[in-house]
Amino acid sequence: MSQNIYDNDTFFEGYSQLTRSQFGLDGAPEWESLERQLPDLCGLSVVDLGCGYGWFCRIALDKGAKTVTGLDISKKMLETAKGMTPTCMAERIDYVQADLDDFSLPGSYNFAYSSLTLHYIVDIERFFKTVYQALVPGGYFLFSIAHPIFTAPARQSWHVDAEGRKSWPVNGYQHEGRRVSNWIVDGVVRQHRTLGTYVNTLLKLGFTLKHLEEWAPSAEQLAYFPALAEDLERPMFAIIKVQR
Amino acid sequence: MSQNIYDNDTFFEGYSQLTRSQFGLDGAPEWESLERQLPDLCGLSVVDLGCGYGWFCRIALDKGAKTVTGLDISKKMLETAKGMTPTCMAERIDYVQADLDDFSLPGSYNFAYSSLTLHYIVDIERFFKTVYQALVPGGYFLFSIAHPIFTAPARQSWHVDAEGRKSWPVNGYQHEGRRVSNWIVDGVVRQHRTLGTYVNTLLKLGFTLKHLEEWAPSAEQLAYFPALAEDLERPMFAIIKVQR
Repeated sequence: MSQNIYDNDTFFEGYSQLTRSQFGLDGAPEWESLERQLPDLCGLSVVDLGCGYGWFCRIALDKGAKTVTGLDISKKMLETAKGMTPTCMAERIDYVQADLDDFSLPGSYNFAYSSLTLHYIVDIERFFKTVYQALVPGGYFLFSIAHPIFTAPARQSWHVDAEGRKSWPVNGYQHEGRRVSNWIVDGVVRQHRTLGTYVNTLLKLGFTLKHLEEWAPSAEQLAYFPALAEDLERPMFAIIKVQR
Repeated sequence: MSQNIYDNDTFFEGYSQLTRSQFGLDGAPEWESLERQLPDLCGLSVVDLGCGYGWFCRIALDKGAKTVTGLDISKKMLETAKGMTPTCMAERIDYVQADLDDFSLPGSYNFAYSSLTLHYIVDIERFFKTVYQALVPGGYFLFSIAHPIFTAPARQSWHVDAEGRKSWPVNGYQHEGRRVSNWIVDGVVRQHRTLGTYVNTLLKLGFTLKHLEEWAPSAEQLAYFPALAEDLERPMFAIIKVQR
């Protein structure tokens, strides 16, 4: 079972202040990279695993998807998502509360999407298997995760040397499992696993790898948001696209 | 053009003292993982890119390969390789001097192999293209590299915190290109590139990814060589297997 930190009042309030919460996908620097990897969504049946406020669900409809199912563990997120959904879209989006560590996907989907959610999943093989079975042959699954370089260390914080050079002190990379960090509130639980584990588990289930990206900010993004420069030192996100 | 550090007398002398030089593949802790990924070599025509002392060339014949071509930039390595090759094998191994940054593979091969060499290659796309064209359809290419987490930092050395915890300070991960380190001698040049670049370049050329491993020592290896424990903190090698 995944931790449901998003239904913690303090966390929810803090999370709602993030750029990505206030501006949706335009406030998420990795969105441009994800968008480049989207297939043509026209007429597709789409599932968003860990949909949060439902930003991607609505974008998918804008891009021509026929229907979207948005799953999330957090009641608060889903309520907010529903409140943000225009009436004309409501019929074609199904927001469903689900613990992605213990769920089933009875429908059949042409495209599966997941943004920054899989690092909360304890049993990743079970999760990938559920997605595989719900996808039509040829269907894509596109997802982003916190990069394993980011999640590995026991203490997730920068080291600054005597000359002011920032480094991300990697340790415990091969020790997969629970990591507790303080992000918005204390005690946020993420699951660390290696890139190799993500990729080999997908291949073993029959997926074909189409794209593996260790996200970096573009020159344009750096010009607008100089703080993103630290993501040049170590990748914060990985983006993976596979095909059933 | 790649640096030919292996023909530097001091480097060559130092390199020849390494466990992996003295004991061949049995002295290379990642060999067990590579061996698990080998296809059945019976009757195959094999090429080893960066063959060094030719350990793998001879193992490939032992495992049933029909012929092996071993390429290396270093004359000294190739001379040693020839000297180590039993007469009964000499006819079926062709040791060829080549700069892998500027080479062609006129033959046709069923299997290509490369151990800890690709991080010396400047133009990796050209290299992968040459291998792709030389492989028969369905042929595998298996290789190991210094892991990008290992090659990224400007200074490749451990950081030890006040409590004695070792970390590998990652910086400059997204800054691909030349890294100079002191390994055996000063000024050894390696090329850093992200795992994403390795994988996406292979996919773009038409290869299919079969395996991505961030090598870790086994419990058995750790019991015999406790010093390998630092490879649990950050991976030193990556192993990739693709199929044309």
